[in-house]
Order: sequence, then structure tokens, then C-alpha cells
Amino acid sequence: MTLQIQPVILCGGAGTRLWPESRGQRAKQFLPLTGQDSLFQQTVARTPAGENFLPPVILCGEGHVTIVREQMGAHEARLLVEPMPRNTAAAIALAVAQADADTLLLVMPSDHVIADVPAFHAAIARAARLAQADWLVTFGIAPTHPDTGFGYIASGQALGEDGFAVDRFVEKPPLAEAERMLLAGGYSWNAGIFLFRAGRMRDAMLTHCRAIFQAADDALAAGLTDGDARYADAPKFAAAPSDSIDYAVMEKDDRVAIVPVSMGWSDLGNWQAVHALAACDAVGNATHGDVFLHDSHGNLIRAGGKRVSVIGMEGVAVIVDGDDILVMPLKRCQDVRAAAKARE
Amino acid sequence: MTLQIQPVILCGGAGTRLWPESRGQRAKQFLPLTGQDSLFQQTVARTPAGENFLPPVILCGEGHVTIVREQMGAHEARLLVEPMPRNTAAAIALAVAQADADTLLLVMPSDHVIADVPAFHAAIARAARLAQADWLVTFGIAPTHPDTGFGYIASGQALGEDGFAVDRFVEKPPLAEAERMLLAGGYSWNAGIFLFRAGRMRDAMLTHCRAIFQAADDALAAGLTDGDARYADAPKFAAAPSDSIDYAVMEKDDRVAIVPVSMGWSDLGNWQAVHALAACDAVGNATHGDVFLHDSHGNLIRAGGKRVSVIGMEGVAVIVDGDDILVMPLKRCQDVRAAAKARE
Repeated sequence: MTLQIQPVILCGGAGTRLWPESRGQRAKQFLPLTGQDSLFQQTVARTPAGENFLPPVILCGEGHVTIVREQMGAHEARLLVEPMPRNTAAAIALAVAQADADTLLLVMPSDHVIADVPAFHAAIARAARLAQADWLVTFGIAPTHPDTGFGYIASGQALGEDGFAVDRFVEKPPLAEAERMLLAGGYSWNAGIFLFRAGRMRDAMLTHCRAIFQAADDALAAGLTDGDARYADAPKFAAAPSDSIDYAVMEKDDRVAIVPVSMGWSDLGNWQAVHALAACDAVGNATHGDVFLHDSHGNLIRAGGKRVSVIGMEGVAVIVDGDDILVMPLKRCQDVRAAAKARE
Repeated sequence: MTLQIQPVILCGGAGTRLWPESRGQRAKQFLPLTGQDSLFQQTVARTPAGENFLPPVILCGEGHVTIVREQMGAHEARLLVEPMPRNTAAAIALAVAQADADTLLLVMPSDHVIADVPAFHAAIARAARLAQADWLVTFGIAPTHPDTGFGYIASGQALGEDGFAVDRFVEKPPLAEAERMLLAGGYSWNAGIFLFRAGRMRDAMLTHCRAIFQAADDALAAGLTDGDARYADAPKFAAAPSDSIDYAVMEKDDRVAIVPVSMGWSDLGNWQAVHALAACDAVGNATHGDVFLHDSHGNLIRAGGKRVSVIGMEGVAVIVDGDDILVMPLKRCQDVRAAAKARE
């Protein structure tokens, strides 16, 4: 691979299902949830500037500029600052608007885990070949279980050995439908990772969601530069309809490809996912910080600088952050927003 | 009742099963576990100095002198300070050694709850009549369930309408035996509350446990007075064998009476007992401090100045104290010492 690919890292998420650790300026992507580095830092490190990748473009909100710069350290990057959240289509439109038409853009969320980076790089190489043939490429994750929290993508006709034409996108399914797709095969999870030629996406946006692209393009032109950061103009960006890139473009276009990949991917979308990925003791406890366990198994305990003692518990999360303490069964991890909303 | 009774309040307990709130200087009896006042303050208030009761004698360790004085406030009391813990027989021997022979001593633990104080006072009047006839009187609690955490006392021959001669003491029983006694009737829980004439107990101690009484008597004589407190001499008190008043005297004497009483008593011996006595919401949650509950019932949550959020939990205790957080099922409340021991 001798292509020069421009990584585009989306930092707009709030990660409220990982409350209380993820909140406000310390959103999920900036936390070291696995290992020493934050998920954002791991994302940056996955496509290092050099032979194959240009320095990344970082899409983020104004509240996260400081932490993005802190966590980038000495690494080169350009920041595109969104004055308000307008979902992924408008964020990607900003990246497209500032790029040369022939640049390949690799769009990645900043808050995912990918354990097998060589597998990811190999998939990028396949996707790049398709993108140069003007396919809008999405990366599909091989499903490991009938998850109802993800959208699915059905593969259609094979495109050589690099991937498949997308047959259709499937919304987050009910369990029976998820089980059916897992059994049938040919379905992938939609991980929100994309690769395309900038000019190709520009044309697609002008066709499918002109208002979004126009607002982003105008906001960038009218914006201000401060060092490595370009601040999009707020009134102009506010005019962009809020929509996901899936709805706004991918599901409408007729030349969308999928590159299936198995790369130890997790979106770490909730505390159960964090537990599933964490190093556990012999009876399934994952702990972080000063934790005493007695006759307990299958728990996720994060002490957050305090001292947590757990007796006779099974399958629960105890998450401490500052003065907040969250206690719940891991299987109730989707309900965290109830507490986050009440507390924030 | 025109008797002058001397309350003797035992403050020597550590209350480790209520860790982390109960520990070190802030032992269980000094905590406001129910209502505004501490259990110690509630104990003092139960026998107010006046027509029937003299100001109390407080037995406590050196580490608790300050908090005893703080919590007594303006109330009159005398402190007998134990240089080291030597169990209840030696503590009671100190109180006996300093009393006139004809004074009636009412010995009470400082860490129990009694909801029905008039019923307690009526039982004291009955016990006082028996004590004046030289019975060593113990108060028996009518059992409400087959508890295996208490000793039991079997009533024998009736002593008029005031009580019964004790037939025998039963050690903490296995469940089947506890169930049998509950069904049979005539058994009470041993609450550790006693009433006797001081001279009568002195004689009993000289007969049954002379070494304990002698050590206490010597320690008191060689002790130092500091204001309201008499500090027993450490080397002399250390010579006292460590034994409970039940083993050392009550089970050996042949003139021991029991006054059964139903007075809303609880020893608040563990977090489950605290939950059972606490005011609960409609679905059985008892909370203290800043607690958010979602789809949870039957829990005891004490936030200790922090903010606790609980989702989808049932029958657990979450106890926060300083930097310590304890999470366990309420039914595992007997296992708290495992954590307390590891942490302290």
C-alpha cells in the first residue's frame, strides 16, 4: 500500500452510557478505558502519519479542543471544530469540503477498540482499491452474537476479492431478526467506519443531501483559523440539517461497497462491553483501582481513586467517579442514561 | 416506682459488622443509625436522671472518652475508663466495685434500639422488685423469628407476676433448634440487659469469678481521676480474665431471674437489621443522603456525603463512608468483617 490516506477522526460523541466516568469534557473517547491510552489516542495511533497515512483531521466540538490537543501531544493534526453537534453527515461534510477531490478519506469514530490492527490495515488496503474505483466503502464487522444494538449491512454481489456491493442496510433489529441474520450469514455490523474519495463523497452529498454539504462548506469558508484549528462559522453550520451519514448518503447511493473484516472490534458502547473486553481474574472479575472482592464473580469494579469492597455479588458494575457511585447489574447497562440524566 | 436505679451503660463494643460506618473512634454506638441521635444518646435518654434514675455510669475505652463527653453534652454522668477491653464481666465488675451495696444497677449495652420505652420502664419496675429480693435479673426479648445470632434463655418457675426463674441458658443455636424453641414457647432472646443489687453481684462474682472482680476492684482503687472520669489502672485491669457476664456469673448462679419483655428491641447488629428498622419507600428501599434509584427495591443505600445511583438492584446494601464503599447483598451482612478486616 503506497496510497496516502487522510484519516478523519470523529470526536463528537458524548458516551453517556458510560456515565459517570464519561461526561462533559471527559467524554468516553478521551478516557483510558482499556490500557494506558485513551480510546482517542488509540484511534490516532492506529493510522500513524508516514508512508501510508497523512496526519489526521480531527472533528470535535469547541468543548473538546483543549483535551484533543493535550492528548495529541506532539503529533501533527488539524482540527475542524463544530460549533454545535449536527450528527455525522455534517461533520463528514466539513472534512470533505476541506479536502482535495482525489484524497482518500478514512472516517473513523474515536471511541472504538480494534485489537487486530494488521487486519484493519489489510481491510483499508482492500477498501482503498474500491474507493479509487469510486465506491463509497463501509467496513463491516463479522457479527459474533445476535446484537440488537447495531445496524446490520447485507452483502450483495462480490467485487473481486476486495469486498461486496451493499445489498441493503438493516436498522437495529429485534432479537429474532438479529438471530435470523446471524444464522443466514452475509450480514455485517455497521461500525461507522468509511473510506471514500473526497470528490466522490462531495458529489454524493450534492445529490443526496445538498443542504448539509452546502451549510458545512459555507461554515468552513466563513470560519476562523486558530493555529492548527479551523472553527466553522456557527450561524452557517447551524443551518445544516442533523442527520447520520448512513441515512443522508450511504442508504441512498447506488454505488456503496462493504469490506467485511474481523479485527477484534468493539464499540465499548456500555459497561457490559467494557467488562467483556477487560482482563478478568479466574472468576470473571475485572477491577480497576483499590478493590477488595470476597466471594464475588463476573463483576466490573472501577474504584476511581476510592476504596471499593464487594461481598457476595455477581454480574454487577460498580463505577466510581469523583463523588458519583453507580451500582447496577451489567445486563442493565443500557439503562445508565436514566441515572446520567437525573444527575447531570 | 420510687427506687433510685443506677444506669450502667456499656460502650465497649466495636460494631465491626456495621463497617465501614462503624470503625475506630466512631464505633456503632456513637452513630445516628436511626433518627437524629446516636444509639448511645438514645440509650442515655431512655433512663433520664430524676425521680427513678441516678445519672448514668458509662463504661468505655480510652479512645472513646472524647466522643462520650461530646455526646453526653450537658448531661451529668460518671465515666469508668477501661484501659483495654476485657469483655463484659470485668466491665460490670468496675461498676459494681464503685457502687454502694444496696444500689440497684441497671446494665445496658449502648448500641441497641428500644422502640417502646414505657414497656421497658414497666419491665424495669418488675425487675427491680426481683433484684431487691436478691435475684440477678436478666431481661428476655420475646423472639419474633428463629434467629441464630442470639443466645436464648429458657424460663422456669414463675416468680409472682414479675418474671421467672431462669431454667437454662442456650448458646446461639442452629436453625432447627431455634425453630423448635420458637414453636415451644417459654424461650427469650438474651439481650444483655441486667438489673441487680450491687452487693448481690459483688458476692456472686467473689463466688464465681473472683479473679475478675479482684482485678477490677484493684484497678479502680489504683486508678486516676480526671474530672468526671475514673481511669482504671492498666496493669491491674490487664490481670482480669476476659469473659462475658453470662459465662462468668449468670450461667453459674442459682438465683437468676428473667423478666420477659416485648419492647420493639433490636440490637442493630448488622446492615440487614438496620434495613429492617429503617423507614422505607413503597418498594422497600431505605435511603440516607443523596441517592437516585431506578427500578430497584428492597435496598439499603447510605450515601455518606457522596452521590449514589442504583439501577435494577434488589436486596443489596451500598454503604459509603469517607473513601470506602461497601456493596453486598443484605443477606450476606454477617460477612462484612471480611472486608473490615482487609481494610483496617
